[in-house]
Amino acid sequence: MADAKLLEAFKTPGDTPFVIEHVSEEFTSKCPMTGHPDFAAVTLRYQPSPASTAAGKHGCVELKSLKLYYQSFRDQGIFYEGVTNQIRDDLVKLLRPTWLQVVTHWRGRGGIRSVIRAEHGKVPGEWKTL
Amino acid sequence: MADAKLLEAFKTPGDTPFVIEHVSEEFTSKCPMTGHPDFAAVTLRYQPSPASTAAGKHGCVELKSLKLYYQSFRDQGIFYEGVTNQIRDDLVKLLRPTWLQVVTHWRGRGGIRSVIRAEHGKVPGEWKTL
Amino acid sequence: MADAKLLEAFKTPGDTPFVIEHVSEEFTSKCPMTGHPDFAAVTLRYQPSPASTAAGKHGCVELKSLKLYYQSFRDQGIFYEGVTNQIRDDLVKLLRPTWLQVVTHWRGRGGIRSVIRAEHGKVPGEWKTL
Amino acid sequence: MADAKLLEAFKTPGDTPFVIEHVSEEFTSKCPMTGHPDFAAVTLRYQPSPASTAAGKHGCVELKSLKLYYQSFRDQGIFYEGVTNQIRDDLVKLLRPTWLQVVTHWRGRGGIRSVIRAEHGKVPGEWKTL
Amino acid sequence: MADAKLLEAFKTPGDTPFVIEHVSEEFTSKCPMTGHPDFAAVTLRYQPSPASTAAGKHGCVELKSLKLYYQSFRDQGIFYEGVTNQIRDDLVKLLRPTWLQVVTHWRGRGGIRSVIRAEHGKVPGEWKTL
Amino acid sequence: MADAKLLEAFKTPGDTPFVIEHVSEEFTSKCPMTGHPDFAAVTLRYQPSPASTAAGKHGCVELKSLKLYYQSFRDQGIFYEGVTNQIRDDLVKLLRPTWLQVVTHWRGRGGIRSVIRAEHGKVPGEWKTL
Amino acid sequence: MADAKLLEAFKTPGDTPFVIEHVSEEFTSKCPMTGHPDFAAVTLRYQPSPASTAAGKHGCVELKSLKLYYQSFRDQGIFYEGVTNQIRDDLVKLLRPTWLQVVTHWRGRGGIRSVIRAEHGKVPGEWKTL
Amino acid sequence: MADAKLLEAFKTPGDTPFVIEHVSEEFTSKCPMTGHPDFAAVTLRYQPSPASTAAGKHGCVELKSLKLYYQSFRDQGIFYEGVTNQIRDDLVKLLRPTWLQVVTHWRGRGGIRSVIRAEHGKVPGEWKTL
Amino acid sequence: MADAKLLEAFKTPGDTPFVIEHVSEEFTSKCPMTGHPDFAAVTLRYQPSPASTAAGKHGCVELKSLKLYYQSFRDQGIFYEGVTNQIRDDLVKLLRPTWLQVVTHWRGRGGIRSVIRAEHGKVPGEWKTL
Amino acid sequence: MADAKLLEAFKTPGDTPFVIEHVSEEFTSKCPMTGHPDFAAVTLRYQPSPASTAAGKHGCVELKSLKLYYQSFRDQGIFYEGVTNQIRDDLVKLLRPTWLQVVTHWRGRGGIRSVIRAEHGKVPGEWKTL
Repeated sequence: MADAKLLEAFKTPGDTPFVIEHVSEEFTSKCPMTGHPDFAAVTLRYQPSPASTAAGKHGCVELKSLKLYYQSFRDQGIFYEGVTNQIRDDLVKLLRPTWLQVVTHWRGRGGIRSVIRAEHGKVPGEWKTL
Repeated sequence: MADAKLLEAFKTPGDTPFVIEHVSEEFTSKCPMTGHPDFAAVTLRYQPSPASTAAGKHGCVELKSLKLYYQSFRDQGIFYEGVTNQIRDDLVKLLRPTWLQVVTHWRGRGGIRSVIRAEHGKVPGEWKTL
Repeated sequence: MADAKLLEAFKTPGDTPFVIEHVSEEFTSKCPMTGHPDFAAVTLRYQPSPASTAAGKHGCVELKSLKLYYQSFRDQGIFYEGVTNQIRDDLVKLLRPTWLQVVTHWRGRGGIRSVIRAEHGKVPGEWKTL
Repeated sequence: MADAKLLEAFKTPGDTPFVIEHVSEEFTSKCPMTGHPDFAAVTLRYQPSPASTAAGKHGCVELKSLKLYYQSFRDQGIFYEGVTNQIRDDLVKLLRPTWLQVVTHWRGRGGIRSVIRAEHGKVPGEWKTL
Repeated sequence: MADAKLLEAFKTPGDTPFVIEHVSEEFTSKCPMTGHPDFAAVTLRYQPSPASTAAGKHGCVELKSLKLYYQSFRDQGIFYEGVTNQIRDDLVKLLRPTWLQVVTHWRGRGGIRSVIRAEHGKVPGEWKTL
Repeated sequence: MADAKLLEAFKTPGDTPFVIEHVSEEFTSKCPMTGHPDFAAVTLRYQPSPASTAAGKHGCVELKSLKLYYQSFRDQGIFYEGVTNQIRDDLVKLLRPTWLQVVTHWRGRGGIRSVIRAEHGKVPGEWKTL
Repeated sequence: MADAKLLEAFKTPGDTPFVIEHVSEEFTSKCPMTGHPDFAAVTLRYQPSPASTAAGKHGCVELKSLKLYYQSFRDQGIFYEGVTNQIRDDLVKLLRPTWLQVVTHWRGRGGIRSVIRAEHGKVPGEWKTL
Repeated sequence: MADAKLLEAFKTPGDTPFVIEHVSEEFTSKCPMTGHPDFAAVTLRYQPSPASTAAGKHGCVELKSLKLYYQSFRDQGIFYEGVTNQIRDDLVKLLRPTWLQVVTHWRGRGGIRSVIRAEHGKVPGEWKTL
Repeated sequence: MADAKLLEAFKTPGDTPFVIEHVSEEFTSKCPMTGHPDFAAVTLRYQPSPASTAAGKHGCVELKSLKLYYQSFRDQGIFYEGVTNQIRDDLVKLLRPTWLQVVTHWRGRGGIRSVIRAEHGKVPGEWKTL
Repeated sequence: MADAKLLEAFKTPGDTPFVIEHVSEEFTSKCPMTGHPDFAAVTLRYQPSPASTAAGKHGCVELKSLKLYYQSFRDQGIFYEGVTNQIRDDLVKLLRPTWLQVVTHWRGRGGIRSVIRAEHGKVPGEWKTL
């Protein structure tokens, strides 16, 4: 089952705002209705909390831990929307970022492919449709 | 004939706003003048009503029902504009979303290909041309 | 010669604003200086007048008539800018749209390819560079 | 139901061998098991019989009749392999070509997309995998 | 564990040779050394045995059963080469085809992506590098 | 009307065989049935006769004359096959090349796009499907 | 040497604002340090002065003169920034446009490719990054 | 080790604002944890200080020095975020630009590819997501 | 320095011939003349020796060892041709394959990009130009 | 004027046959009729003479000298065919290769783009159309 305890964080390098983006094209979970596997690309974007703040002490997600966290969804039955919201919530809890965005692109069912976009904080407009 | 009763909805997962996009590249209807088939890709985007509102109780369209609803246009004679407006109106009635957008890309007639974009509510500017 | 009388219109389907786009990649006219043929892709975008208005009575251009109108430029000697402005003016006169945009992409002369964009009314910013 | 009588042919223009290719990206039929629509692109290639032969009298398929023939599959329940073999057999019977090839690209079911290639006569090796 | 008993076959439609291709971009198994998931696209191509032969009685693989068979690799620890050879062997045993080819494209490890191609029977040269 | 007298040739530069290819994406003629314009890309490939032969004296087509020759089809009603065969015949008569190939890609009618390939002499196999 | 006197202008067709874009992918100059050739694509965009103004009398650049002007840089030793600024200044002086933008894309040196963007007047935001 | 002393600057050509962009697809450094090489494309964009200001005296980075500076990261163990911030800081110190943006695209680890964007000054919104 | 002792092999899975391809887009070495870094994508293809032969006991290269071997070129000054020949020779010595092919794509110097292809044994014709 | 004396060669690394390819996308010469610049991409491919032969002593072209040789065409008035044949002849004379191929892609005149392919020796069939 998806396990947020796998996630680890490290201190934001400084106080100057910048934006981090991680794209994984190897995400898979299972449909909770049929048990069939679902496949997605997951994009995570966020502006970490400044280093000098309390949140900045654990401001950036460690890349290998993110991979293991994504892998923990492999056997879980969960809807598209559930995946997207859970990733956002787990990472917001971990990082307390200035803003954060999760976008999942699903390969499709019945001839329909889907994209779910979830956000936290004030995501600048220019990121919203990417 | 296109049948909105095929559509089913489920409750929005929560109150945090997010955006759902479904793309079907397998849409077909018929020209009401000539009876010849038309082919389109249909993109649906919307921000569902928050779960805690009345509309949120039926805030997200179920994917399989959406496929069957699209298939119900197969034998209908209807103009490009009619398809686009009807999909918008049927889904707005079903979901009462914060905003909703329907974009249809038609493969073309007489060397001209067409795109029709219909909206409901206040669609953020960054989505309008996608 | 280009003939605006070939254009026909039909009533806007309703009062909810929406956007129509027609792309023709088979446009050809002649250079007025040399007589050599020019080739372009022509994109027309507009928001039709609401159905309940006087203009909405003839608010949308009929697709086959648009094709014939474009074909009527085939033997005409006319500059890039002239083509673009004439199409805009003829369609504005016919449709009286809320806004309208004509973009012509020319295949090029002497190693230079050109794009001409003409507008009527208040075209939203997000369309201007498309 | 698919109707070979819709097909019409015209005489091959001459005796010098040449190759004709028609690609339709707007083919649809139905799954005979579930009734759900299938979508394909259909490529037809053939070398017509020489004009001076008996077969050459009806050596080339007329394009509009081909379109109507393809449209006649719209309501038919038929497997991928059946579609491909039937198109080949109907056209071979009509045209008696030197060689003929039918390739169907299907948009996919359950995450699997399929290509079926059927041939008649001695298709040159360089065409086989296209 | 990968389970060949999930595979089902149906009779080849006729005796005229033709070629069937199925592409799945949603294949996943696990590395037998590290347990980490691997992701691949799997292409299967074959010429089925003619219908009038004993092998032709079970000459074509049924598409849904192929999907379930592929899904049965999901929890198996197995090398790239092992996956490719096993799929070939299981399908050759089931279908006894005239020829058959399995190509797996793996998304990569440590900056290296891999392609494994396995064959049975006399695969025509033009298919070998596809 | 298409006018082969517009074509001019110059002497092949030498006796070592080489291959010349000219691609025009600005070809237009008219459908002889409906009068509607057709649009094509025309590819010409040939190996000119060696300079030291009689044919080599007029072995290569001059580029500007080729452009004017193609433009002379602009007002002609002629089928796809007719265009392709006439270009081949006119150029073979002019150049007497070792081999020559004409390929026309037509933008399509009724959802079907077409490619016609005509040859003269022994075109090497590797060129046939390009 | 680059020669602005090669440039010619013609009167803006009317008073309605529109935008002209010319793209040349065949620009070459020389590095002033090493004498090695540089290669660029040059994009020019501008909104011409209205016809009824003094500037509008010479509001649009003539295409052939623009080509000759670009060719006049062929033997000149000049930096990327110098090319971009000089084109802007020469054209602003000639056309006195409402706004004007010059973008040069350089093919690269030492593994680094460069883009220089220069502007005159109030270029609308949507053009700035194109 | 990365060495900012390798960087050289030259005077901004003038006072009119313009934007400079340099893209290097040949950047490599090392992971500080494992010592394995990392590969990135580095994009630098900035608006140089006007020539007439003190900062404008050293307002533009010299291209060859930038290449050598990038090469000096080759043997350094440093995180993605560290690379991006150091490049920004070194160049801001050198150039004192009106605004500056550094974007690094990393080829990926464990199936995840990353993009880091760092800024200085008021980067116009239209550049932020490029 | 490039170190073939880093390479490890494992036994070919069986006796049925198949083809293995590994593509690394993260190869870098140094120019022996200037010391500047070179960047390449390296493709390795081979048919391993059958398992039942002596060579088949060490017939396939282990992927992680291949990565480390490639990394060992990082500080070496060596020409394009030298890299390609050395990789071929080291792997032929290790694997004694039925055939083997190494293709290196170099990003380019002075506006020229290069591809070097080296082979061992009888590489089937269809692979030679890939 | 094009100057073959700029070309330099070095010894083939060994006796095992391999293939070298150099692609330059920055070639320019002038039309001998009009003086206008022409632009091409030039691809050179060859199999060098074995090192142990007399020709192998000067079997490979040095890359920087090739660049300078190409640059020496910059001011020369010469036809497409002339460029292609001269490059072939100059390099054959220098390298005496087993086989050699020169392909020039020209950006086009009057809407027609051209490709010229010249060869020396027995170029394997799979290279001929690349």
